[in-house]
Amino acid sequence: MLKREYEGQNCSIARTLELIGERWTVLIIRDAFLGVRRFEDFQNELGVARNVLSTRLTRLVDEGILEKRRYQERPARYEYRLTEKGIALWPVLISLVKWGDRYVSPAGPPRLIVHRGCGGEVNDHLSCERCGKPLGARDVEARPGPGAKAAAA
Amino acid sequence: MLKREYEGQNCSIARTLELIGERWTVLIIRDAFLGVRRFEDFQNELGVARNVLSTRLTRLVDEGILEKRRYQERPARYEYRLTEKGIALWPVLISLVKWGDRYVSPAGPPRLIVHRGCGGEVNDHLSCERCGKPLGARDVEARPGPGAKAAAA
Repeated sequence: MLKREYEGQNCSIARTLELIGERWTVLIIRDAFLGVRRFEDFQNELGVARNVLSTRLTRLVDEGILEKRRYQERPARYEYRLTEKGIALWPVLISLVKWGDRYVSPAGPPRLIVHRGCGGEVNDHLSCERCGKPLGARDVEARPGPGAKAAAA
Repeated sequence: MLKREYEGQNCSIARTLELIGERWTVLIIRDAFLGVRRFEDFQNELGVARNVLSTRLTRLVDEGILEKRRYQERPARYEYRLTEKGIALWPVLISLVKWGDRYVSPAGPPRLIVHRGCGGEVNDHLSCERCGKPLGARDVEARPGPGAKAAAA
């Protein structure tokens, strides 16, 4: 058990932030939802120091949010996959996306989260804007949005 | 403009975290949703250092998430209220609550978010579990949950 980040707080938000509130952690989880699995690919996507990435991945595995699986024997190579507990963070990520799209993406959403096969966007209530179906992590795919062209600095 | 926390990320999640990802900031917003308005009350609720609280509140005001209003003339006293931009963070907080209730609250949810007048809990799709109505921040109230008794350390 690591030191409590928010001593004195008997609160599900505080406890969740103790697991995912560290710098870069939510973006690692975002990339896992986008299909990133290998250390090198996380590193390329995030441009984060390798020791920081390693610490964050290990913590997420320890907390049962990611699972570390060997995908090659010789040499041994590993990938990181979201567990059910990790996939259950999908509403957190979608709610961050939707707010950011609305308030801090002047060039438009960099990425659209759409109902696979239907094409409707996910709304604030995690349903499809087009067909109304309640959506989960496995029902959607990410597509470049109007703000995708804004060069990543 | 403060330094970018996540250089190279053209992403609504990263941009949102640049505003609310600092330690304590989400808990300040949580308390604002729970009705806390005054510096002293935030300080009592959070037990955070006054200079940290002051920095966080100022940042949230600068970003248009909180509004600082004078509520008394002599001596001048101020309170902090969520703006519409701040209230729009409600889905982020609810999704953190729901995940935390499920995965990191062994004594049960410390706090229940229920549909005012109906009593049904808000679900992952931000609707009422009992009557099915889609809910927003103004439709709910917080009640002590089964985990409320666990003493705050």
